This record gives sequence, C-alpha cells and structure tokens, in this order.
Amino acid sequence: MTVERSAPPTISEVAAEAGVGRATAARTLGGYGYVSPELRSRVLAAAERLGYRANALARSMSTGVSHTLGVIVADIGNPFFAGVVRGISDASRARGFDTIVLSTHESLDEEIAAMHVLIDKQVDGIVVASAALGPKTSAHIAEAWSRGIPVVLVDRAVPGLELDAVVIDNREAAREAVTALIAAGHRRVGFVWGPPIAGRPDRRRDLVDAAARNLWTDGERLRGYLDALDDAGLPFDADLVMVGEKTEERAIAEVERMLGLDDRVTALFCTETDAVTGALRAIRATGFRVPADVSLIGFDDSSWAAVMEPPLTMIEQPMLALGTRAAEVLLALIDGAPRSQPDGAFRHTLDTRLVERSSVAPPSA
Amino acid sequence: MTVERSAPPTISEVAAEAGVGRATAARTLGGYGYVSPELRSRVLAAAERLGYRANALARSMSTGVSHTLGVIVADIGNPFFAGVVRGISDASRARGFDTIVLSTHESLDEEIAAMHVLIDKQVDGIVVASAALGPKTSAHIAEAWSRGIPVVLVDRAVPGLELDAVVIDNREAAREAVTALIAAGHRRVGFVWGPPIAGRPDRRRDLVDAAARNLWTDGERLRGYLDALDDAGLPFDADLVMVGEKTEERAIAEVERMLGLDDRVTALFCTETDAVTGALRAIRATGFRVPADVSLIGFDDSSWAAVMEPPLTMIEQPMLALGTRAAEVLLALIDGAPRSQPDGAFRHTLDTRLVERSSVAPPSA
Repeated sequence: MTVERSAPPTISEVAAEAGVGRATAARTLGGYGYVSPELRSRVLAAAERLGYRANALARSMSTGVSHTLGVIVADIGNPFFAGVVRGISDASRARGFDTIVLSTHESLDEEIAAMHVLIDKQVDGIVVASAALGPKTSAHIAEAWSRGIPVVLVDRAVPGLELDAVVIDNREAAREAVTALIAAGHRRVGFVWGPPIAGRPDRRRDLVDAAARNLWTDGERLRGYLDALDDAGLPFDADLVMVGEKTEERAIAEVERMLGLDDRVTALFCTETDAVTGALRAIRATGFRVPADVSLIGFDDSSWAAVMEPPLTMIEQPMLALGTRAAEVLLALIDGAPRSQPDGAFRHTLDTRLVERSSVAPPSA
Repeated sequence: MTVERSAPPTISEVAAEAGVGRATAARTLGGYGYVSPELRSRVLAAAERLGYRANALARSMSTGVSHTLGVIVADIGNPFFAGVVRGISDASRARGFDTIVLSTHESLDEEIAAMHVLIDKQVDGIVVASAALGPKTSAHIAEAWSRGIPVVLVDRAVPGLELDAVVIDNREAAREAVTALIAAGHRRVGFVWGPPIAGRPDRRRDLVDAAARNLWTDGERLRGYLDALDDAGLPFDADLVMVGEKTEERAIAEVERMLGLDDRVTALFCTETDAVTGALRAIRATGFRVPADVSLIGFDDSSWAAVMEPPLTMIEQPMLALGTRAAEVLLALIDGAPRSQPDGAFRHTLDTRLVERSSVAPPSA
C-alpha cells in the first residue's frame, strides 16, 4: 500500500506499514540497537514504500552542508547580544541558513563546550563572541577551523588570532563619551565598571592589565577613559575606577563610595546596562539628582534609556549591524572566500553613536 | 607511527599521517564524494592509528542520546525569553545537557522550520514557546513526539494539545493589576496592547477572539482586564483598548489617542515592555505626568523599571523559574516519566507578583 500525502511519513507510520512496533522501526531507521534481519528488511521495505526520508542529519553527513550556522554568545540575557543574534539570524535566514545559539555565561569552559556541541552538530560556520584573550586560550576556535568549519568573531577581537572580527571601536567610543563629560566641565569622572578584582591597584597600568585580562572590550573601554583624561590633562585617580564583581549590587556600592569621597565624582561613565541601573540606584539612594548633581553617560542604548527622567545620554552600538555583518563575512567564508589577512589585524569596525539626551550638565558649584 | 597526544586528532592530521590531501581525508571520514579504494584504505588506517573518533553526530546516531536540549522561543531579544532560556540552560547544564536555542520572530512558519532543525540535529527533547493556537496548527509538535523527542510548552499553552505546559496565570495576573488601578479610584483604564487588527470591533467578544487568535497569552491578559472591569461593575469601552501592530510606535499613537478622548484614560495597563515604554513616551509627549495625571502598571519587571522616576509598579514574571521547571519536566520525560494527563488540562502554573512601586495614584480631579 502506498499513501498519497504531502507531509513526510513518521517513524510510527513506517512501523504501522511494516506491522512492527514503533521501537523496532526506530532502531532500524536510526541504525542503533538490535533488530532481527527479518524485521529489519520489513521496516526498510515499508520505509521505501512510504518514501520515508533519512533525516537531515544523515543527509548532512553525506553532503557536508547542513545549512545551519552556530552562534556562541556570553549571555543571551544581555539585550546587546540578543540584538546581535537577531542580526545574524536575519542575514542568515535570507540566505537559507538556520541559526542555533548557545550561551556561555561568560565562561571560557562553557564556550569550549559550546564549540564542541556546534562541531558535533555539523554546523556550516560559527560566530562567536569569545572570552578568549589570545591564541593560548583559543584552541577550540582553531579546532573548528581544522575541521573545515569557518569561525568569525563578533563584538570581541582575540588579540593575536588571525581571524575576521566584527567589532566596534570600544576605545574610541569610551574616549568620546568621557570627553563629552569633561567638555561639560567635569574633572572628577567615575568609571563603572572596572576590572573584577578584589584589591584596588594604584597604578593605572595594573588596572588596565587587569581589565584586559578579564575581557578584551573591558580593557579597550578603560583605555578610552584614560585617553580622554590624558587629552584633557586630567590626573588619573584609582579611587574613581570601580573594582570588584560586575553586578548591579556591586556597582551600587562602588558608586555610593565614589559619591561619598571628599572630592566626590560629579560624572559617571557606565560601560554596561546593569552598571547604568546600579549607578542610578546609588545616585537616588544618596539623594543626588541627574544631571544637577551627577552627570551620566552609559553604554548600550535602549528604549528604556529614552523614557527615563531625565532621558539618558547613551552610546548606541549597532547591534543588528554587528550581527548582519558577522553573518555576511561568515557566509562568504563558507562560500570559499579567503579569511583575514595573515597579519591578524583584519577587523571589520562598525561605527557607534553618542546619542545626546539630557543626563549631562555642568557640575554644580 | 603513533602520536602521543591528549587533544583529538583533526582531519588534517589524519590526512598528513595518510599522506593524502585534506579533502580526500575529509571525504573518506565524512563518507561523501568519491575516493579511490587505495586512498580510502590509507586514510582509514591512519585514522585508526591516530585514534580519530567519528564525530558525536555519528555517535548520537548509534546511541540515540546527544545530551542536547533544543529551545524555541518567539523572540530572543525579549528579556522575558532571555530569562526563560537562562533558566532552561542552568537546569539542563546541571544534568549534563547542552542547550541550543532558535528564535522564530513570532512566526509559526519559522517555528515549524525550527522544530525540523532540532529534529534533524537529534536533540533529546524540546522546550517551545509556541505560536500554535490549537491542534490544527501544531502538527510539528506532534511530529517531534512521533520521532521519540519529548516536547514541553513554556509561557504559552496550546489549548486542546495534550502536553505539559509551564505557564503563569496570565488572566489572573492581569485581573490583579487592573483591580489595583480600579482600587486607586480609576474608572477609565486603557489596555495596551490589544489585538493586532486593523479595525476596532465594538463587541468585547470580538476583541477577545481577535486577541486569542493572535496569541494565547494575549487573549488571557485581555480576559483578565475584562474580569476586573466586571468585578467592579465598570462598563467596557472598546475605545480604551489598543488595536493595531504590536510596536512601540503604534503604542505611542494609541495612548496619545486615549489621552485625547473627551473622557480620557486616567490609568494604563501595559502588557509588555515595549508597550510600557511606548505609553511613557506618549504620556511625556502630551505633557502629562506619572502618576499625577496617569497611573501605569506594566508586565515583565526589569531593573530599568525600578530606576524610573517614578519607579514603576510592575507584574514580575518568574522567568528563571519558568525555564527551570520546563527543563525539569522535559528531563523527566526523557527519563521515561509519563506525559501530561490525557484531558490536556495539565498545566504547571507558577506564581506572578505585583511589585508595587510609585506609578499608581488616585486620578486627578
């Protein structure tokens, strides 16, 4: 009996056609476990009559193309990464590729595990916002390449790794924001958040090293803050840089500390969304007001920032465009384009924008 | 020659060991394309000497367990779903399962495609926030089951489908919020957002049907709004329900319209984050203030809502717990537990919480 139908037949239907149990059909068609030769041949005959297709996994093993891209991000709950993923997914869908995403909770070990999952699932290419800091910690990325799976970095470059990286200029964006605060008259500008270390080094070099050891973007943003101080001839003061765990709670404590200094901060530069909300809570808790008492600029614009009272001046990252460009570069590599220049410095740098609203004013007297 | 090493050998290393090109080794080990019998046997011998392992994809085809869960959500950029995914991922990692995520942009067609990707990638189970509205549109979910892959619904039940669904009581949460607004003295409460339809039906039944046809949660939240009006003996007025596309821009236009009515709204109930920010923009644009002129309660609490001026009263959904519970139910099904009761009414309902802050006050005179 053959069946006229448009939907592909299921294992249960093959089992019914063969007159065997579902488990027997599944074992036969999946190629696992024991099935007697007689039942096996009945199942295979039924599968052929019904036009049962081997699943795409088996197909991808024979064709080498699964039309799936893998994406690894640090934290899927961060609206920034959600926007990047959206951009990747839109651009890859337009080319007939599905996108699967894994989140690593900012853990390099989880990133390595995620990379192996994607290799095992035979994706055609991978976009990763990597926590790796150099070639020594990026063997998992090299392994994907060695298995013929192209990898493109997004948001975070890995210094020394010869790979396409689609990023913004974090250092320049931070410099621009802090320069805007200094131009408004501020001399005591706090940096939230800084490196996640217990002690507070006095030397700026040690702070920068600690930040860069944690995350490439962290180091770049701290460098941009220092650039702006240098440009204006302002002294560096380690007390104005947050240290400790990168959480909203810790940001509250550190900003309250900076607001309690004898020569207190009059402006804050916050490098992430939770740093912004933590700073705002600390400002409110200490009875200060934005921007009359404290000016503030944050990273990662959102619809919330625009409806705050006052609306917040923010650095807007091109989240969708970062994702779109990363997907385009990856799809070109899959199509056989050469990868980045061997000097390893090949970066696709997209523009940020300082969205000026009403959270910056001259310092109060 | 055998090589002492800890990292698994790559295809390139097998090729070098066999003295063949990488493409030849890849074709042989991947089982695709033509390779001469002589080269094939050299590659296979080299692979055996180096201990090259067939990839996990091939392994999962022979063992039937890939230790991977699949998650399908409507919009990975929505912080609510990001929280749910985080909960699923934490709970499944604790059991040694990786989680891969696909986002469907609220499209049933994309959900169906995503389901097939996950079936093809041989995940062991699937959690889906489905756009399906009943058994007629959920054949893809049944197909996963028929292939031996358990499915658990999260956030959205599918009426008539006999499946475990981990949800909140949307109707009750909405009723509680609107009742709080009415208890503060409001008689003209706007509902943002309503069904995404072009015209504005006068009959409440038509509005509810339109909302429920769009999304299960939409229908439930509108019913809760109507329950609260009924409880208080307040009349239903179709003019106080937003219609049209569910975007921040449309919410701005609809709230401005409601604020411009002769008998204007004095309170708003907003069912999603972008509805809240749209309402706040409209309130500001028309010169009104929260809560002096307009009270507001929103769905999906966030750290932003707490730092608004005034801090916003919000319904807090247990995002992480929804994800954790969904993963637990799914892992139990994978372990062989029976699925939901055959009446199809078996739901795991988690509690919401009305977080009272400062955006609700009595109506102005």
